[in-house]
Amino acid sequence: MFKDIEQQFLRYVKKMMSYNEAIQVMYWDMRTGAPEKGLEQRSEVIGVLSQEVFKMSISEEMAAYIAKLSPSDVQEQLSDVARHTLAECKKGYERNKKIPEEEYREYVVLQSKAENVWEKAREASDFNMFRPYLEKLVAFNKKFIDYWGYDGNPYNTLLDLYEPGMTVEVLDDVFAKLRERIVPLVQAVVSSRHQPDTSFLFHPFPKEKQRAFSLELLRELGYDFSAGRLDETVHPFAIGLNPGDVRITTRYDERDFRTALFGTIHECGHALYEQNISKELIGTPLCTGTSMGIHESQSLFYENFIGRHYCYWKRNYPLLQQYAPEQFANVSLDEFYRAINEAKPSLIRIEADELTYSLHIMIRYEIEKGLFNGTIAVKDLPDIWNDKYEEYLGIRPHCDAVGVLQDVHWSGGSFGYFPSYALGYMYAAQLKQAMLKDLPYFDELLETGELLPIRNWLTEKVHRFGKTKKPLDILHEATGEGLNAGYLIRYLEEKYKAIYQL
Amino acid sequence: MFKDIEQQFLRYVKKMMSYNEAIQVMYWDMRTGAPEKGLEQRSEVIGVLSQEVFKMSISEEMAAYIAKLSPSDVQEQLSDVARHTLAECKKGYERNKKIPEEEYREYVVLQSKAENVWEKAREASDFNMFRPYLEKLVAFNKKFIDYWGYDGNPYNTLLDLYEPGMTVEVLDDVFAKLRERIVPLVQAVVSSRHQPDTSFLFHPFPKEKQRAFSLELLRELGYDFSAGRLDETVHPFAIGLNPGDVRITTRYDERDFRTALFGTIHECGHALYEQNISKELIGTPLCTGTSMGIHESQSLFYENFIGRHYCYWKRNYPLLQQYAPEQFANVSLDEFYRAINEAKPSLIRIEADELTYSLHIMIRYEIEKGLFNGTIAVKDLPDIWNDKYEEYLGIRPHCDAVGVLQDVHWSGGSFGYFPSYALGYMYAAQLKQAMLKDLPYFDELLETGELLPIRNWLTEKVHRFGKTKKPLDILHEATGEGLNAGYLIRYLEEKYKAIYQL
Repeated sequence: MFKDIEQQFLRYVKKMMSYNEAIQVMYWDMRTGAPEKGLEQRSEVIGVLSQEVFKMSISEEMAAYIAKLSPSDVQEQLSDVARHTLAECKKGYERNKKIPEEEYREYVVLQSKAENVWEKAREASDFNMFRPYLEKLVAFNKKFIDYWGYDGNPYNTLLDLYEPGMTVEVLDDVFAKLRERIVPLVQAVVSSRHQPDTSFLFHPFPKEKQRAFSLELLRELGYDFSAGRLDETVHPFAIGLNPGDVRITTRYDERDFRTALFGTIHECGHALYEQNISKELIGTPLCTGTSMGIHESQSLFYENFIGRHYCYWKRNYPLLQQYAPEQFANVSLDEFYRAINEAKPSLIRIEADELTYSLHIMIRYEIEKGLFNGTIAVKDLPDIWNDKYEEYLGIRPHCDAVGVLQDVHWSGGSFGYFPSYALGYMYAAQLKQAMLKDLPYFDELLETGELLPIRNWLTEKVHRFGKTKKPLDILHEATGEGLNAGYLIRYLEEKYKAIYQL
Repeated sequence: MFKDIEQQFLRYVKKMMSYNEAIQVMYWDMRTGAPEKGLEQRSEVIGVLSQEVFKMSISEEMAAYIAKLSPSDVQEQLSDVARHTLAECKKGYERNKKIPEEEYREYVVLQSKAENVWEKAREASDFNMFRPYLEKLVAFNKKFIDYWGYDGNPYNTLLDLYEPGMTVEVLDDVFAKLRERIVPLVQAVVSSRHQPDTSFLFHPFPKEKQRAFSLELLRELGYDFSAGRLDETVHPFAIGLNPGDVRITTRYDERDFRTALFGTIHECGHALYEQNISKELIGTPLCTGTSMGIHESQSLFYENFIGRHYCYWKRNYPLLQQYAPEQFANVSLDEFYRAINEAKPSLIRIEADELTYSLHIMIRYEIEKGLFNGTIAVKDLPDIWNDKYEEYLGIRPHCDAVGVLQDVHWSGGSFGYFPSYALGYMYAAQLKQAMLKDLPYFDELLETGELLPIRNWLTEKVHRFGKTKKPLDILHEATGEGLNAGYLIRYLEEKYKAIYQL
């Protein structure tokens, strides 16, 4: 009897997921060359399907499935997939149902207005233009936290949206440790007399050659082209439509090949995650990464722990030299390696290197936490922002455009998202350390281009589970311990002390 | 009161159309490079959405809208768009509702099996492999005709699926006239001593240059690239996702540039139709071509009445010569014109020229009519097919693969579709004649590349109406008379007598 309900429930969910897949295909299409004049109508189509998915997530039918399948004696008999799917749907149901419909509609309108205003405010470098919208967005999210409730700290509820189970307690601890060691390290790097020469990076490098080189690297990294494709967009992304169709996009800067090179490797890390999720999760909300942070750990693992590793370039630098002989003929591997690992404080997060990146995140984390704990007011953000940049990175933004207005996230109402980026770094470093126990010849694998064991390890420990496990459980099972900032700290200290001869 | 219902009804229909647009985007994506491993799941997604559209078309909600809005006093007060939308939905409702659900499911399964079997049968050139499937497909369609009912001739019901309002009576008449004049004309062409030299057509012509040339022609023809794009597929098509997004695909044969050239111009004709449908029809089932035949008239108008016209090449041949100087340096415009208008009997419909094409269609028409009137049995098809080819075209297929098994249509259960192709020729010739009254300098427009008046005329008379008018009404209003095969006959006789010096 309940087996019938289980089947009906899974069919119902599969329908929602089918709509989502259709939406994602249209999203990809819009970003990779859909004709401009059709976009308005296409947005409406996406709107119709999205609304349908939302309605289904809070329908009476959904409520009935949850009611019938939730009792623990029933749950015990459900398949693993059904049980985890139920948990996800329940979470979504409760979240979506608790916000009064009218209020949510207002919020959606506000979001889209705020994004437009933010764009203009950034162009004008005028925080005050954006301020009233940001205040409303924060106020809405405070109300949502009230509706949803919270454990320990109101901000936890927002963190949980992107990093299920993550808390202020954990983040305060790891960020304090990071800050303590990274801030002085950055200062030492800045004042080192051994700065890398980067001048040779900025030679013209034709797009077609960059693309061909990227394709070779992607193949070696294990990206499956019969389950994906590489396209070009202004803002690169990876998108998992289903595990058999995970697409990457990249951007080519003909004056700086690093944009496409590291961008592609980064998105490849995301894509390998989605390509290797267990097939049995297709058609459920579990067929995706478990969290933003774990997703980012995969992209950063590939971008930094492989893509900026000396041994990786011991193998691939000769190939790069073939693609751009004039540019690199007189540059040694060592010079190249130091150049692509240059670290220095900068104002813009998305241009930051791996050493300084977490500091950018910490600043945003502290501000968000303050906003939702009532210790920081929106009106004071520009000053607080600038002070923190001076304190952590030793540089002060000269205007809002390169300061508090630089990121799109808040304008879309995304609070609690930023910490995932820093978590991605920490997760990646911790996974790398655990991987070394199973693959002690890691460096040699990079040097010989045998990258399959690495991907297999990540698939075994991370990818295949999709969203059936929480991020901290995945981390714990893979590494034997909870989140530990020490691995990232040690990695950065060793690497940058060597490069800058500290 | 009924205004509310009208609005609700239009919203309901818009939702169905949104699902359809999503399906079409995925369909386009599947054919232009979606990764292979994702296709199975993508097909399921398409299946889920299609089923939903089908369900909505026969739902109780739909039945209620039809019941409430159909009374003539209500209809009178509806907007034009709502009234025509209602008529379309009613037609769909009645069609879909009358077939028992279980029977329809069986039929869908049969269709997909039959297509596979047909492919194998064609490879093996063995009609008997396909025969039992074709028998079942015909039997199902006969039952459908019983469910749906018919006027005059059972086959009319199938014709109406593709060409609303078209009847055996009309077709018998026009096809008899065509046959009477085209068959002897083809014989005369075959035995003419003035055969064009076509040897220079088959030089290597690099794909990239073909594409660049195609793009130039498309722009001149008035194809709007901000509402479309050109991609590459094995089987070329045009697809209207909405009037702001109408895409074309083409195929490049590097040993025969005609494939891409005329294929692109042909699809452009389809695309111009869809790009210029009135915007107020977006979100309704009226936002598409009125029938297969009228759609084909637009593609054929561009392909033949423009693309194979002497004056068109007077302008564009020098450009072609620039793209392929070696191939055409020593070929005069007259030689080129005669070569691209070569006509000769052949076995394969899709490779046929404009002179012989209608004969291929007539054969299929006569066979289909016989199948549904009970005068022809499936088992006799190969012989009947071959006899008719001998009679009309003077050549006899030596095996089923190039005979009765050549077309995909029947394997998908599409009976009644073929006549639309021939109707497209007749409509196009008749429209051309009417156009000449308004645009007497037609030839000069081609010669100067001022093609906008031509497109505007077609938009005014055909495109903008979408599916709000029936094909024969469009024809009548545009040309002042009903279907008249005389225009196509006159066009072909004049053109081919000149080319072959008869």
